[in-house]
Amino acid sequence: GVLGSGDFARSLAIRLVCSGFKVVVGSRNPKRKASLFPAAAEVTFQAEAVKKADVIFVAIFREHYSTLCDLADVLAGKILVDVSNNTEINHHKESNAEYLASLFPACTVVKGFNVVSAWTLQSGARDGNKQVLICSNNQEAKRTVAEIAQVMGFTPVDMGCMSSACEIENIPLRLLPAWKIPIFLALGLFLCFFTYNLIRQVIHPYIREQKNKLYKIPIEVVNTTLPCVSYVMLSLVYLPGVLAACSQLYYGTKYRRFPDWLDQWLQHRKQIGLLSFFCAALHAVYSLCLPMRRSHRYLLIETAVKQAMEKKMTIWVEEEVWRMEIYISVGIIALGLLSLLAITSLPSIANSLNWREFSFIQ
Amino acid sequence: GVLGSGDFARSLAIRLVCSGFKVVVGSRNPKRKASLFPAAAEVTFQAEAVKKADVIFVAIFREHYSTLCDLADVLAGKILVDVSNNTEINHHKESNAEYLASLFPACTVVKGFNVVSAWTLQSGARDGNKQVLICSNNQEAKRTVAEIAQVMGFTPVDMGCMSSACEIENIPLRLLPAWKIPIFLALGLFLCFFTYNLIRQVIHPYIREQKNKLYKIPIEVVNTTLPCVSYVMLSLVYLPGVLAACSQLYYGTKYRRFPDWLDQWLQHRKQIGLLSFFCAALHAVYSLCLPMRRSHRYLLIETAVKQAMEKKMTIWVEEEVWRMEIYISVGIIALGLLSLLAITSLPSIANSLNWREFSFIQ
Amino acid sequence: GVLGSGDFARSLAIRLVCSGFKVVVGSRNPKRKASLFPAAAEVTFQAEAVKKADVIFVAIFREHYSTLCDLADVLAGKILVDVSNNTEINHHKESNAEYLASLFPACTVVKGFNVVSAWTLQSGARDGNKQVLICSNNQEAKRTVAEIAQVMGFTPVDMGCMSSACEIENIPLRLLPAWKIPIFLALGLFLCFFTYNLIRQVIHPYIREQKNKLYKIPIEVVNTTLPCVSYVMLSLVYLPGVLAACSQLYYGTKYRRFPDWLDQWLQHRKQIGLLSFFCAALHAVYSLCLPMRRSHRYLLIETAVKQAMEKKMTIWVEEEVWRMEIYISVGIIALGLLSLLAITSLPSIANSLNWREFSFIQ
Repeated sequence: GVLGSGDFARSLAIRLVCSGFKVVVGSRNPKRKASLFPAAAEVTFQAEAVKKADVIFVAIFREHYSTLCDLADVLAGKILVDVSNNTEINHHKESNAEYLASLFPACTVVKGFNVVSAWTLQSGARDGNKQVLICSNNQEAKRTVAEIAQVMGFTPVDMGCMSSACEIENIPLRLLPAWKIPIFLALGLFLCFFTYNLIRQVIHPYIREQKNKLYKIPIEVVNTTLPCVSYVMLSLVYLPGVLAACSQLYYGTKYRRFPDWLDQWLQHRKQIGLLSFFCAALHAVYSLCLPMRRSHRYLLIETAVKQAMEKKMTIWVEEEVWRMEIYISVGIIALGLLSLLAITSLPSIANSLNWREFSFIQ
Repeated sequence: GVLGSGDFARSLAIRLVCSGFKVVVGSRNPKRKASLFPAAAEVTFQAEAVKKADVIFVAIFREHYSTLCDLADVLAGKILVDVSNNTEINHHKESNAEYLASLFPACTVVKGFNVVSAWTLQSGARDGNKQVLICSNNQEAKRTVAEIAQVMGFTPVDMGCMSSACEIENIPLRLLPAWKIPIFLALGLFLCFFTYNLIRQVIHPYIREQKNKLYKIPIEVVNTTLPCVSYVMLSLVYLPGVLAACSQLYYGTKYRRFPDWLDQWLQHRKQIGLLSFFCAALHAVYSLCLPMRRSHRYLLIETAVKQAMEKKMTIWVEEEVWRMEIYISVGIIALGLLSLLAITSLPSIANSLNWREFSFIQ
Repeated sequence: GVLGSGDFARSLAIRLVCSGFKVVVGSRNPKRKASLFPAAAEVTFQAEAVKKADVIFVAIFREHYSTLCDLADVLAGKILVDVSNNTEINHHKESNAEYLASLFPACTVVKGFNVVSAWTLQSGARDGNKQVLICSNNQEAKRTVAEIAQVMGFTPVDMGCMSSACEIENIPLRLLPAWKIPIFLALGLFLCFFTYNLIRQVIHPYIREQKNKLYKIPIEVVNTTLPCVSYVMLSLVYLPGVLAACSQLYYGTKYRRFPDWLDQWLQHRKQIGLLSFFCAALHAVYSLCLPMRRSHRYLLIETAVKQAMEKKMTIWVEEEVWRMEIYISVGIIALGLLSLLAITSLPSIANSLNWREFSFIQ
């Protein structure tokens, strides 16, 4: 059974019909709404629909839950699935599902399907996340809803008892919260170092010697900026651990809470580290592209021609040769090690490592 | 208990014995077959074996299920595990497990272990997929079989009730079905663009100016072909979304089913996108290899020598320099963005993103 | 309830209090220990604490389990969670959890939380593995503990019945056991080939022609060594399969166990293959860096100048050009194929492939 006639209710009904379920839709105006639903779904009055169904999806807004109170008698003993979402994180004091459960103590309430969009429901779970998070205080009801999700082509995930409902309702509102600060940090650092390198490599030679080196901006200036950002970010990954150790030594205890800013910092280390790796990888690609450029070719030919005309046979500078060989080989090793760290941060790899292995690699 | 004496039955018996279970094998000719099984497994007549076992693996072909009907009385109340596979997708109208359940209504039937090969069973799950998909209408029986799988070193996955059996039986017959069309599409596009570039870069100069440029085929021609394929594939990822939106606007409803070809197309977008990324990545590697080639070196020296003999000091063309710098830097940025898309399509990353984050990144 | 006052007990109490549980701690000297625990946790005598709690975490060493025997009466009917770890793999004949269960037959024992470190417990599961492996012979108790883990922010994983306890207790002691042999193998091969290449490319020219080529050591010698290691490792991935097939043909049976060394070898193929891919990828990066080096630039200019002074116009050697073009293009294709193999070995990808698809790609 589905209560409601909005977008989500319709998509849910379509998907349930396609998965072979017998669907009955409860609406306050079944005649007008019937055309919105697939022909195989029976559209009728709410009380009628509730009587015929064992599992009822409540696809109406939290604000209208109380309008169902007239149906309390027919709803008694049924499984109610709360699929609702909020518009803001922690909008209400208690989660929608817990609110629904308090209105209908005679029903078994299951939270689920709210992490799925109407579009995914209608078209089947094609790409992205196929998980449907489910929680309830009743094991049997949770299992029933999990099996419905399975048949519909989703992967049910048991999130435990009703107290997880609040967390589940907040999930669809998240927008990469852990990444915001690290990304702005990286952008800020990039801007600072870019300005410095621009002045040093382009503006200064232009003012002092009237040399036009503007062509260096898109590649060379960016390429000297990236490793600076990468280094600073990498040091920001390991610094808070040292600060935390100092704070523990200072207060003589491991069990004092860290100040909030340090706690926040410790929590963002993984993201800062991955951005550091991203900058390092970009730096590698930029560096590899250097000999491909037209300007590199021109400068090379110019040097050769100049030397040929001066009849100067050799220009081998041992120190410069060694410096470059060592730069490059240390750079490759550093990138290789950073890659290992990045790979172990993939969720599926991290889950196959124990705590000792993880810290060994770190 | 294991019924049957084929390859799978033997591997199953070996594995069960190695995992510390007491195994009894039921055969129609126990004397002749006993030598095929490990010494620790007791090989006896079918009726005898069934009496001694609580969980019975039915490792015989669907065609011979009916020969077990004589044992219906001794089988009553036991857990039967259907491990059979088909030779074609959707070969029979009802799944093997459901057929077995209909023959023995007094037994509890569990589907499982069919996704595991005889070889994996015998040698333990070393690499590749360690999952054993299990379904049954009886929770208790499903749990018992899941625990046996756990002890044998596999990861049991609960696939819900018996109606999933058909899907589970089709899994081992799949061979990357979602990849077939995109791969042929990519190969077709590659051939077309390769022919065009071959004519343009090699055959045409040869006919018109008798210049032998055959050496360009393995790298340069391939390298100009790859980005063309990548671009066309990328546009094919975003085009069906636009077509779908147009169709919805035209019909004035979101709830009309798309035509079959559009539906198929929408379902293959992820694979088309990944192939587009693969071509782009190959193009990057090919491009980076260009300055490494002997031909590049020869052409460079030739130009330098020619210029030195003409006493021409400089050949700096500002426009060409800028064009190349911008080509390369836009190329790197595009590759970086495509990499992000490719990483978010890894199952373990996709499962940690909600719908809003996934579409934000897309 | 928490029994014990060590590091783990304190971290556990802090985390449980933070997750909203009512916590009572049992200690033999509650007055002295109370200051170590958060104010919200009640610290009292062991017998007192056990009476008040339904689920009791036993955070004391295996050696002291017997000291709890006085509490056997009050403990009866409670759920005991064994969180202990050993200091050596398979230290005792029976697992700690099974030993605890044998001491208190009237209690329900659940094994869990031992894979989590005290630090992770205290600070919440921030990075790395969030899984908590749980096993028990009692379904209801296992579910209760799983829900506690869920609320604490971990991902409970059901590992079946008590016989898995031994395996779970060994997990935190593992340190990448499958990688040890392959890594030493790769290092050994690297050393051998490096020495050979060093003699051939640096020492020999120095002795014979007094040419100083020491600058080649960090990049060129390493770069000729890496593909040798990669090839030998790759052949070691496919060789044991051939040997296994030969052994099966020789003995005329598929069901004979392989000798131990072959079995070990077969089990390490995935790791050997990944190290082979790692060497190949490093070789690619090193090769791409070659034209970036100062020495490459000097040699190029030297050749150009020499030729210009000899008025020699062209040096195009068709064979050398072709050889290099083919080397590079075959190298790129080989790296592309190895990348596909490496990607399918990611756990989340491998789990989405069936056996047929996996061997098709291999």
